[in-house]
Amino acid sequence: MTRKRNLSMLADYYEFTMANGYYQLGLKDEWVVFDMFYRRNPDGGGFVIAAGLEQFIDYLLNLHFDEEDIAYFQSKKIYDEGFLDYLRHFRFSGNVYAVKEGSIVYPNTPLITIEAPLCEAQIVETMLLLTVNHQSLIATKANRMVKAAKGRIIMEFGARRAHGYDAAVFGARAAYIGGIGSTATIAADKAFGIPAVGTMAHSWVQFFDNEYEAFKAYATLYPDNCTLLIDTYDVLDSGLVNAIKVAKEVLMPRGHRLAGVRIDSGDLAYLSKKVRKKLDEEGLHDTKIVASNSIDEYLLESLFDQGAKIDSFGIGERLITARSEPVFGGVYKLAAIKRDDKYQPKIKISENIEKITVPGFKNLYRIYDEEDMGMIDVLALYDETIDHNTPLVDPNKPYKRYYIDPKAKIEKLNIPIIEQGRLIYDLPSLKAIQNNTKANLKRVWDEEKRFHHPHRHYVDLSEKLYQIREELLKAGEIT
Amino acid sequence: MTRKRNLSMLADYYEFTMANGYYQLGLKDEWVVFDMFYRRNPDGGGFVIAAGLEQFIDYLLNLHFDEEDIAYFQSKKIYDEGFLDYLRHFRFSGNVYAVKEGSIVYPNTPLITIEAPLCEAQIVETMLLLTVNHQSLIATKANRMVKAAKGRIIMEFGARRAHGYDAAVFGARAAYIGGIGSTATIAADKAFGIPAVGTMAHSWVQFFDNEYEAFKAYATLYPDNCTLLIDTYDVLDSGLVNAIKVAKEVLMPRGHRLAGVRIDSGDLAYLSKKVRKKLDEEGLHDTKIVASNSIDEYLLESLFDQGAKIDSFGIGERLITARSEPVFGGVYKLAAIKRDDKYQPKIKISENIEKITVPGFKNLYRIYDEEDMGMIDVLALYDETIDHNTPLVDPNKPYKRYYIDPKAKIEKLNIPIIEQGRLIYDLPSLKAIQNNTKANLKRVWDEEKRFHHPHRHYVDLSEKLYQIREELLKAGEIT
Repeated sequence: MTRKRNLSMLADYYEFTMANGYYQLGLKDEWVVFDMFYRRNPDGGGFVIAAGLEQFIDYLLNLHFDEEDIAYFQSKKIYDEGFLDYLRHFRFSGNVYAVKEGSIVYPNTPLITIEAPLCEAQIVETMLLLTVNHQSLIATKANRMVKAAKGRIIMEFGARRAHGYDAAVFGARAAYIGGIGSTATIAADKAFGIPAVGTMAHSWVQFFDNEYEAFKAYATLYPDNCTLLIDTYDVLDSGLVNAIKVAKEVLMPRGHRLAGVRIDSGDLAYLSKKVRKKLDEEGLHDTKIVASNSIDEYLLESLFDQGAKIDSFGIGERLITARSEPVFGGVYKLAAIKRDDKYQPKIKISENIEKITVPGFKNLYRIYDEEDMGMIDVLALYDETIDHNTPLVDPNKPYKRYYIDPKAKIEKLNIPIIEQGRLIYDLPSLKAIQNNTKANLKRVWDEEKRFHHPHRHYVDLSEKLYQIREELLKAGEIT
Repeated sequence: MTRKRNLSMLADYYEFTMANGYYQLGLKDEWVVFDMFYRRNPDGGGFVIAAGLEQFIDYLLNLHFDEEDIAYFQSKKIYDEGFLDYLRHFRFSGNVYAVKEGSIVYPNTPLITIEAPLCEAQIVETMLLLTVNHQSLIATKANRMVKAAKGRIIMEFGARRAHGYDAAVFGARAAYIGGIGSTATIAADKAFGIPAVGTMAHSWVQFFDNEYEAFKAYATLYPDNCTLLIDTYDVLDSGLVNAIKVAKEVLMPRGHRLAGVRIDSGDLAYLSKKVRKKLDEEGLHDTKIVASNSIDEYLLESLFDQGAKIDSFGIGERLITARSEPVFGGVYKLAAIKRDDKYQPKIKISENIEKITVPGFKNLYRIYDEEDMGMIDVLALYDETIDHNTPLVDPNKPYKRYYIDPKAKIEKLNIPIIEQGRLIYDLPSLKAIQNNTKANLKRVWDEEKRFHHPHRHYVDLSEKLYQIREELLKAGEIT
């Protein structure tokens, strides 16, 4: 899907004013390390599900500038001819480390680390953020809805309210990573194999002379999978009555059953209970009730509290736009510069304490207890070995050191993806990514999963990294 | 931009189960009319700015299905071979009527009307809604910010937080229609000629040994347009001091001036006043102050209330995601069916009164008073003539009829765009669309423009249309 387009020019203008500057100053091949991370979980949640890596890789491997792009830069009359020639032959030659898609991640830990010559690392910023921010946002939101649906199926119905074409297609992909079962968007099925579903709109019902004729026509055409939309006129007095009639007069005589009825308006709790009761009375115990209409995790919780009888949900606008919090604030910050073959850590200071970065070229570890539950994350320098003898520091309690419990397991989360511009990672199927999410979620405490005031996951530092951070902070702005 | 991709498969699955059904029932060539409209202004505002028509037209003129698409449908094993053959030769052959991009529109009035054979009209639903919902949302949001900025320039900085690639590029386009002046997104400049701007990120400042060196390097490279980011370490004690030093030591001796300083964190009201005072004291009266960091129309209002001294704004995430209300709920409803060469109006009833549609194939008019201010909109049947002698009805006061004031001007807002599948409309330049927005806004009362409890614009009906609606409502669900 991305391969067909040149996304190389989807970048903030300043990436190129800076890159041109670095080029002119002879700095373009200085090796640097940038981290992509975020500072706060959306919706006050306990974690984020990382997504979007595959599309970012695809962009990176195809990143190049054609003559039309060069002509664009030339027209601005500020770019050095040598720099433009550099762009003409540009290929990404750096290294990429990342957590796998479907990983559970926490604030202030790198989702993706870029180690590359300065100009290359700078130019990829916008697309990295755009891709990973968007998909991580939607994967995380989708998972909240999946959790609230308590095992019932969620279908993603949002294309018509998505923010553009990619938001519909990659949004469906991300929602699938977060655990949804199917999508209404054909392009997402075609591109990623997410099963596409859908039966009828109100227009189908309106087009026929009456509702019964509309249902009968549909049931005759699609007897194997007949879900009827019953709220065009009146759910209980018309839609349900006609659906039952069609089940008995059209489907059952030919050996078929009514697969489902869909309610897209009105009080879903009240209507679903009434509909269930009536269907059961009529012997249609196997007919499923599908609900749609501005559903999100909060409405799902409320529906089940009220005893709603709904078997599956079509969720549109509030998932595809992540309506309650549509901004995922991932950032991309310089972490280290190579000097004399060694990485010198860099820090970004701020008057806002939570905006101060963790400096240095780092690895990310997760520590699991004996029950295989994720206890804490640990950031350490890239050339450190982390084991049960490494002194660690909780930055909120810097006065004491501790060691990892001997029975605890240590797992490195960031893995090499691209080496010197070459993909060295086997891209998993989307199904495998969804399974990865599920497996990872089993290792997360329920206390981190709850919606209201979830437990804050600890992210500690190796003593070595902690000391470096302290020194840079003390040194003040001039690192 | 869209031309390079086949967006034909970006549709809800049910469009094709319905279309296949219509085909099998011999109904595919029944002519119908669908309206795209919305029900509520976002953010409690007084109106919406219509946008996205150009991209929808582009889609429609290129809509086709290749063998790969056909193979996809075949794999589902529910589609009729005749229908697939119909898709193989599919071209849109209908008519499109629409308000121009940059039009001011109100709830429950059609932005776009499709008059086409049933299957064609059904298949285009998802892309119509997706395109127009997204761009109208962002154009409207951008205009709120432009209004709140009181004449100061707004730069769109949102790509990294956009919901996918198209959201960044078409979002910038829509924001320009809404009145923003420039963008950070290169692809939007390249595709649409929206001036791209941008200077440096924090990483530039961090890369050098100290802030002064970073500023000096930048000023030396870009003396003509030197805007320095002054909040990497400390705005007042470091960034501003170094910027002034560079202005005096690097720029001014060579005959240049410091174009601007940018503040991206901290208290923008407080810092901007302090920075302005200091710059003025140093004789840098012409150095502009640029602010960014989670700005929206509400923060803009508050900043000016506090006397902030800011000349231009970089607005990112809250514009590109329309954060305060990211869902634009445009819908697409069947309005009429041709029977015996005459359009029979269709209504969608709902227990929610505001969800009941205005039936029929319609035209949309706006009535302007002697001062050329838009007073009311009028919906009438497509074959009616609307003039000063046409009796009109306010649906909220159905007991009385009225006539348009003899001095008032009547303007038809929806115009023919595509006729029998052929474009008959001269697509305006993006600049012309932005100018159209500006011209239209001059004809809107301030009372409709205010953010809090704006005046509700009246949408009345011709008496003829009103009577049809009443009859259909009385007839109940069976139209």
